[in-house]
Amino acid sequence: MAKELKELTKRSENYSQWYNDLVVKADLAEQSPVRGCMVIKPYGYAIWEKMQRILDDKFKETGHHNAYFPLLIPKSYLSREAEHVEGFAKECAIVTHYRLKNSPDGSGVVVDPEAKLEEELIIRPTSETIIWSTYKNWIQSYRDLPILCNQWANVMRWEMRTRLFLRTAEFLWQEGHTAHATREEAEAEAVKMLHVYADFAEKVMAVPVITGVKTANERFAGAIDTYTIEAMMQDGKALQSGTSHFLGQNFAKAFDVQFIDKNNKLDYVWATSWGVSTRLMGALIMCHSDDNGLVLPPALAPTQVVIVPIYKSQEQLAEIDAKVAPLVDRFKSMGISVKYDNSDNKRPGFKFADYELKGIPVRLVMGGRDLENNTVEVMRRDTLEKETMSFDGIEEHVAQLLKDIQSNIYDKALKFREAHTITVDTYDEFKERIEDGVFILAHWDGTSETEEKIKEETKATIRCIPLHGDKTPGKCMVTGKPSAQRVLFARSY
Amino acid sequence: MAKELKELTKRSENYSQWYNDLVVKADLAEQSPVRGCMVIKPYGYAIWEKMQRILDDKFKETGHHNAYFPLLIPKSYLSREAEHVEGFAKECAIVTHYRLKNSPDGSGVVVDPEAKLEEELIIRPTSETIIWSTYKNWIQSYRDLPILCNQWANVMRWEMRTRLFLRTAEFLWQEGHTAHATREEAEAEAVKMLHVYADFAEKVMAVPVITGVKTANERFAGAIDTYTIEAMMQDGKALQSGTSHFLGQNFAKAFDVQFIDKNNKLDYVWATSWGVSTRLMGALIMCHSDDNGLVLPPALAPTQVVIVPIYKSQEQLAEIDAKVAPLVDRFKSMGISVKYDNSDNKRPGFKFADYELKGIPVRLVMGGRDLENNTVEVMRRDTLEKETMSFDGIEEHVAQLLKDIQSNIYDKALKFREAHTITVDTYDEFKERIEDGVFILAHWDGTSETEEKIKEETKATIRCIPLHGDKTPGKCMVTGKPSAQRVLFARSY
Repeated sequence: MAKELKELTKRSENYSQWYNDLVVKADLAEQSPVRGCMVIKPYGYAIWEKMQRILDDKFKETGHHNAYFPLLIPKSYLSREAEHVEGFAKECAIVTHYRLKNSPDGSGVVVDPEAKLEEELIIRPTSETIIWSTYKNWIQSYRDLPILCNQWANVMRWEMRTRLFLRTAEFLWQEGHTAHATREEAEAEAVKMLHVYADFAEKVMAVPVITGVKTANERFAGAIDTYTIEAMMQDGKALQSGTSHFLGQNFAKAFDVQFIDKNNKLDYVWATSWGVSTRLMGALIMCHSDDNGLVLPPALAPTQVVIVPIYKSQEQLAEIDAKVAPLVDRFKSMGISVKYDNSDNKRPGFKFADYELKGIPVRLVMGGRDLENNTVEVMRRDTLEKETMSFDGIEEHVAQLLKDIQSNIYDKALKFREAHTITVDTYDEFKERIEDGVFILAHWDGTSETEEKIKEETKATIRCIPLHGDKTPGKCMVTGKPSAQRVLFARSY
Repeated sequence: MAKELKELTKRSENYSQWYNDLVVKADLAEQSPVRGCMVIKPYGYAIWEKMQRILDDKFKETGHHNAYFPLLIPKSYLSREAEHVEGFAKECAIVTHYRLKNSPDGSGVVVDPEAKLEEELIIRPTSETIIWSTYKNWIQSYRDLPILCNQWANVMRWEMRTRLFLRTAEFLWQEGHTAHATREEAEAEAVKMLHVYADFAEKVMAVPVITGVKTANERFAGAIDTYTIEAMMQDGKALQSGTSHFLGQNFAKAFDVQFIDKNNKLDYVWATSWGVSTRLMGALIMCHSDDNGLVLPPALAPTQVVIVPIYKSQEQLAEIDAKVAPLVDRFKSMGISVKYDNSDNKRPGFKFADYELKGIPVRLVMGGRDLENNTVEVMRRDTLEKETMSFDGIEEHVAQLLKDIQSNIYDKALKFREAHTITVDTYDEFKERIEDGVFILAHWDGTSETEEKIKEETKATIRCIPLHGDKTPGKCMVTGKPSAQRVLFARSY
């Protein structure tokens, strides 16, 4: 798929266009012919697969099992939980028929009106309803609890404005759905999974996140509490990157899921659900990448090291091939994914630009002079710094460099966020400073009215009530009423 | 989820009921509230995940990459390939609307008639059409070829009669879709992937299969050739377990996918597609299991070894715990998955029956006498043979036993198939013997008419024209016309 590489829009010119360009030009994803649905291309999917594998291992370490529940949900199920239907019924794909037939004029196929479903089916926007209708049959006693299931699946929400990875009609995700005998255990589970997500974001994606709880306005439809991880993008906007919900007994009541507890009393089951999606790809791309293309954390890069030869003759190429072959083996035995690109249908300059665009963390170049001097040129993608080094022991150097890149891009993102997070005490200052693209910690009186007024006037929302950090009470910047602690405001994706 | 174990129906009494009982009682899957759609329970899903992981590694070793294409397909796409639409349009889930609204009487939600799609969307029954409409943009020149993509996905076919794993409206599968510059390369790819499937079935699932090519009647809708692997179940019926299609240029023509070849000539691209699904779970279950429950090949058993203590006092249990702990560690370090079940809320007899039902390949039991004698009782699930052995070095014995079980159940299935495969030369004999539940190798004149007559009169179909084995020509058992080679007849799932 060799095409001429085209310039990316610069971030400073148009951040949004830069993102769109990057996703398409780095071969991550593209729009499909179906409105709002994307095609995830092999390179983008390879990154998503690495995310999946690492998250899946974490879920299993914490005692969860995978299962699979139906794609389609009977329409009436959505109505069982009052808030849930309000949140999800307004934007969903509805299956009404189950057969096509040849059109009378022979021009194609048409819906067969005879094949109308008695009850319409909804493509799952999320699976609480179908799963709790199933759990009803799995749970009789406290001995059947906890149930700790996760599902990797596609879901669909009929979004009007879509953007690749960030907001698409169909997206891929995992949804954990757990059932517990006590409120305390369910709450602890929701918080535990929030921390699994935060850990993954910071250690694997190298994306620093703020953990917190959502306000009532921003809660998941049907939850008692929604916990969230919020990341800052390079334009200062927040991206909600994962959520974990304490659902109380809401779904157990909606689907009549009761159990006999240890004291032989009948009670409703306590629930959580938690999910991350292909939206994480958007966070990953937007947090680290630059005007040359993707910058990937080594922990998620499908190829961590690329080696490019520069040669004047086939003899010289053969010499480089021979010198590089054992190095490739050493990388592989160290668990480092490596590609030696000695293809002769692309110029080195094209290869360099392409691998920068794709975000390969480390590039090694070997030319004639390197052969003579037993050296190799090492470039790190995050800083674009080049260094010529001895070929001997280069694999240890690269292994260390991959670790350095992983921590460097995290540190850089953290410093960026810290430099763009401010504390504000007056609403006037808030309105002025929010234009700069910052996170603002400010006091709020806890009411939905004030929250909505701020949103309407500034387009900023409360991203979360942070779990950690300053807990000093104060006065709401808008109403002057008491505030328990500062909350996090930002404009968001 | 401790419930009283109930007796399975015996295979000899009602094979079909035995299968249904087993799937549900072994906690593999169950019917969902959505007609024809199943819930895959954690234990069933754990087996499917092992299959996925091993197959996925094989696909990657053979140069394939995963990608993801949309769930929904515009209705008109199905009509582009004439045979394809005939094969799939008759049984599909159709999305016609994208919004619900509150019903006027307040009783729930109804489809919003304002939110009708201009063109209906079909939930993918298979993805050739959406993928080839995408490949059109990826392919200009021979340099863009081959494209070797695979997708793990859910698909939906509106089946009237469904059975867990064997035939469900929604099922999980993988579908490979490849694009090639030459006919030869595409044909070789289709055959290569058939052999990947055959190898997986025989070496991992321990299910012997016959590889062959389908007759025109049984071909995939839109294919030039459909290759298949066919397995024999314990009732002598065939189960088609995986197919690989050489699609010629049919889909390239339907979606106008042309490329400039090496000689600078414009040509249509050559295609294959190939898939296996959760139907493999049905093959696995039906091929090996017995009246006590599942028999799993060690290569796919989520737990390969279970250890159960039998004790008279807490002190004795503590002694057994101490003795078993290092053994558990040794198993883990050998890559053997092991569970030590010292739970005290179930009797040993219950545990034994449950682990037999679940098909755990090896069971170790340690009681007071074993403690005294430094022994352990070893039971293998496939033959139910028990042996008391020295505790020292038991891990090496078990490692070898797991290999023996893997090959033994394959050999047993192969012998069963050989004992139930016959050669027949007259149609009278065919009609008599097909009632015995056998595979029949017989001559056929190559016409659809004869094939349909046989199907109608005997319910047996041509499973495949075998790739290997006897290629001697002969005369059709029905019409006496010339036959190139014997073909494989059976009744099937």
